[in-house]
Amino acid sequence: MDIEAVAQERQPTPPAQGLRWVRTCLEKSKDKAVDLGRSIKKLGQDDPRRVIHSLKVGLAFTLVSLLYYVRPFYDSFGISGIWALMTVNFVFEFTVGATISKGLNRGFATFSAGALGVGAQHLACLFGEVGEPVVLGFLVFLLVGAATFTRFFPRIKARYDYGVLIFILTFSMVSVSGYRVEKLLELAQERLSTIVIGGATCIIVSIFLCPVWAGEDLHKLIFMHLEKLAVFLEGFGSEYFQSVNEDKAVISTGEKTFRLGYKSILTSNNMEESLANFARWEPGHGRFRFGHPWKQYLKIGALTRQCTYQIEALNGYLNSDLQAPPAFKKRIQEPCMKITLESSKALRMLGSDIKLMTEPSLASLHLCNSKVAVDNLKILLKTTSLEDAELLSIVPAATVASVLIQVVKHIEEIYEAVDELSRLANFKSAVKPKVSPEKPQAQSLLHRGVVKPIIDVGGDNGDVIVTVLDDKIPENENDSRAHNPNQHVEIVDIDRG
Amino acid sequence: MDIEAVAQERQPTPPAQGLRWVRTCLEKSKDKAVDLGRSIKKLGQDDPRRVIHSLKVGLAFTLVSLLYYVRPFYDSFGISGIWALMTVNFVFEFTVGATISKGLNRGFATFSAGALGVGAQHLACLFGEVGEPVVLGFLVFLLVGAATFTRFFPRIKARYDYGVLIFILTFSMVSVSGYRVEKLLELAQERLSTIVIGGATCIIVSIFLCPVWAGEDLHKLIFMHLEKLAVFLEGFGSEYFQSVNEDKAVISTGEKTFRLGYKSILTSNNMEESLANFARWEPGHGRFRFGHPWKQYLKIGALTRQCTYQIEALNGYLNSDLQAPPAFKKRIQEPCMKITLESSKALRMLGSDIKLMTEPSLASLHLCNSKVAVDNLKILLKTTSLEDAELLSIVPAATVASVLIQVVKHIEEIYEAVDELSRLANFKSAVKPKVSPEKPQAQSLLHRGVVKPIIDVGGDNGDVIVTVLDDKIPENENDSRAHNPNQHVEIVDIDRG
Repeated sequence: MDIEAVAQERQPTPPAQGLRWVRTCLEKSKDKAVDLGRSIKKLGQDDPRRVIHSLKVGLAFTLVSLLYYVRPFYDSFGISGIWALMTVNFVFEFTVGATISKGLNRGFATFSAGALGVGAQHLACLFGEVGEPVVLGFLVFLLVGAATFTRFFPRIKARYDYGVLIFILTFSMVSVSGYRVEKLLELAQERLSTIVIGGATCIIVSIFLCPVWAGEDLHKLIFMHLEKLAVFLEGFGSEYFQSVNEDKAVISTGEKTFRLGYKSILTSNNMEESLANFARWEPGHGRFRFGHPWKQYLKIGALTRQCTYQIEALNGYLNSDLQAPPAFKKRIQEPCMKITLESSKALRMLGSDIKLMTEPSLASLHLCNSKVAVDNLKILLKTTSLEDAELLSIVPAATVASVLIQVVKHIEEIYEAVDELSRLANFKSAVKPKVSPEKPQAQSLLHRGVVKPIIDVGGDNGDVIVTVLDDKIPENENDSRAHNPNQHVEIVDIDRG
Repeated sequence: MDIEAVAQERQPTPPAQGLRWVRTCLEKSKDKAVDLGRSIKKLGQDDPRRVIHSLKVGLAFTLVSLLYYVRPFYDSFGISGIWALMTVNFVFEFTVGATISKGLNRGFATFSAGALGVGAQHLACLFGEVGEPVVLGFLVFLLVGAATFTRFFPRIKARYDYGVLIFILTFSMVSVSGYRVEKLLELAQERLSTIVIGGATCIIVSIFLCPVWAGEDLHKLIFMHLEKLAVFLEGFGSEYFQSVNEDKAVISTGEKTFRLGYKSILTSNNMEESLANFARWEPGHGRFRFGHPWKQYLKIGALTRQCTYQIEALNGYLNSDLQAPPAFKKRIQEPCMKITLESSKALRMLGSDIKLMTEPSLASLHLCNSKVAVDNLKILLKTTSLEDAELLSIVPAATVASVLIQVVKHIEEIYEAVDELSRLANFKSAVKPKVSPEKPQAQSLLHRGVVKPIIDVGGDNGDVIVTVLDDKIPENENDSRAHNPNQHVEIVDIDRG
């Protein structure tokens, strides 16, 4: 037995070592394959449109390959069919807007640069055998340099970058190859037509097969951001004042994800801008007509980001070492909780208004409520004495209060931007609340529509009246607010916070 | 006279109208041309490398055009020379890193996809006349779809996106055109060599003619950001407490630009990431070796952005309607000014350390000073009573104090990240201060090097000792700290703030 034990502890013989190495390698690569499989699955599940897009690109390639496979096509286009493949490769993008933008850019740039190239070729011919390449070289240098420089203009970079790139390529190709190739015009015409075929294939497949609209993505991104802020504010109120309450079990750990959701807003400006740039090129679709005010979405996005900077500051106080004395926290708890709750509801409503494309109305009510809460908080801070606590310990909580006041200001700006959007894009008028005279601000914020009260939701204040829609129900929306009983609950519990 | 006046007021005759219209048009287009000229000039002056880049691209195009113009080249490559033009067009980018990245991506993708395409072509041949296009079509659909899907992986998107795009293009082109074209291998070889020529031209022109290094740009961006924050903090202190002081003329309006500089940091994450991605591909240049820890720059950048969110909050209090009572402001003025001044100096030092690639040393001193100021501020807040003012009016100033405390925490994180960078990139050790025992934190922050005191800068506290460089002076830097008398002034006035 002893000998066997020693044998097992001994260095293994070379063949055994090799076998073990192979086994380790196999196990490692199996693990890696499983990991890869998992991340592929996750990527597809996160957004199934990715899988569909991949299939669409495959289809577009297969379709333009027919220019080679089908004899009559090949007879008329020859090897120029390659340009159709190239067009599909560079033009087919994830969203319809990007595809159309690149397709049109490529088409127009090819046409104009091709014409210019032929002109340059004719001009150079006048300089004789020796002069021709020199003049051509000089023209290419000049035009390529100038066109490259235009790519630094931010507006050209944003919208026509690909066009300029193709312009440079086509001009240099036509003028340079014209030096050697006979029948230049014929070749140019063949190429232009295959490029048009490739571009058209992309645009058609992109639009008619499960289209991904940049505009819709932007629309969704903007209202999702508002919802994320709402989720944070909702969670923040309960979390920050949790330690004050006896009942700590209210918040489950699962709900604490609210503290991560909003982070993506901080860095989404590039995505918003590129989506808006692409959305501009898209034809009318669904509820969006051509010329929808996409710029206003950028404005709302920027204001949302401004608000998020404050939210980021708030988040810093959630697990700060310095915690205010419970007595002081308890004192400001009610108005602060009210501010977070009502702000959160206002944001949620604004998000829902953008989502359903209805005029913002209920949001103004919640905004008013949060402003009233801000006033209450201010009165409270005015009358608070420091008898029972020193200023230093109060500072963090006072800062939270101060930042919350800023947040409400930002939400008011967002409200105004959404209101402007609703006017620019002719949003439908929807639920219209009637406001009691106790809250005069609300009246000034609501400046449209007839009000038909049906349910008096008598809360503690009894000042919220929910009304019926006086316009037809939004189309294409399963979760239309007017038909959703949960939405009524949402309205009903305004004053239970 | 009356008749003339009436005639002048009358509607002008059609020819006169036309003339006026033409004149207006001419004036308008003249204005536009002048505007365009101005913006071109500004674009070039803002970064003269843009003009140079445009000329470089023009040169690269002219160089590869020689494949057409020069007879021996044309005889060996034929119209495949077009692929060199295409390569230059798509590969030549503003920075060396981006150009190398795209060039290598294109080269490897073309080679591997070309080989795979030839293989697919041979496989399809086995299925006979009728089966060949079907099998080819299926293979193209499958591979293109799969490759397109991989572009959604964030890591592949960041580094190999262009490679995948070229892989798809080459594979489909080779396999599809192989169906019609004889001498496929010869064609593929011609293309590959022209692509290599094109790519090599780009990389050579890009590296050897006024190179623009992505790494250097990233390096510069990161320390410029720190400087921008320093400028803000410096300005903030004087601006916020300005109303307290009698001497209002200290701040000129021109200096108020400090409130805009830092804004660009908020949205620079994409730029930082792409520069870091490109810098990875660059060979050693100047003071950067291949494999420089570019990732650490991203970390510093992210921490700087975190700090900027707080700065953004501070900025909101600069022109807030709510101003704290002068008595309270005056009370907290001294430690707050000290915090802003010392933080600002710490950031400036850290920026300068990154710029000169020296170990951070003096920065830790200023950081310690600002931490001491934070402690003083805390003590002050502890002992402040609210006898003379109500809490509400104090809140904004208290918030400013609280945010300043957060800012110092963030700067400490930035310090640690810069320190880590200095270790990862083997920064030179530079000026080393000796710290008096009153400030034990400083001792723990400074953990390297021999100290040779020469000038005892006895401030109010008499705790700052400036020392000479114990390492050789950094090369390639005209503004080396050790030889710059201003830098000494910078150190000397530490305790005059």
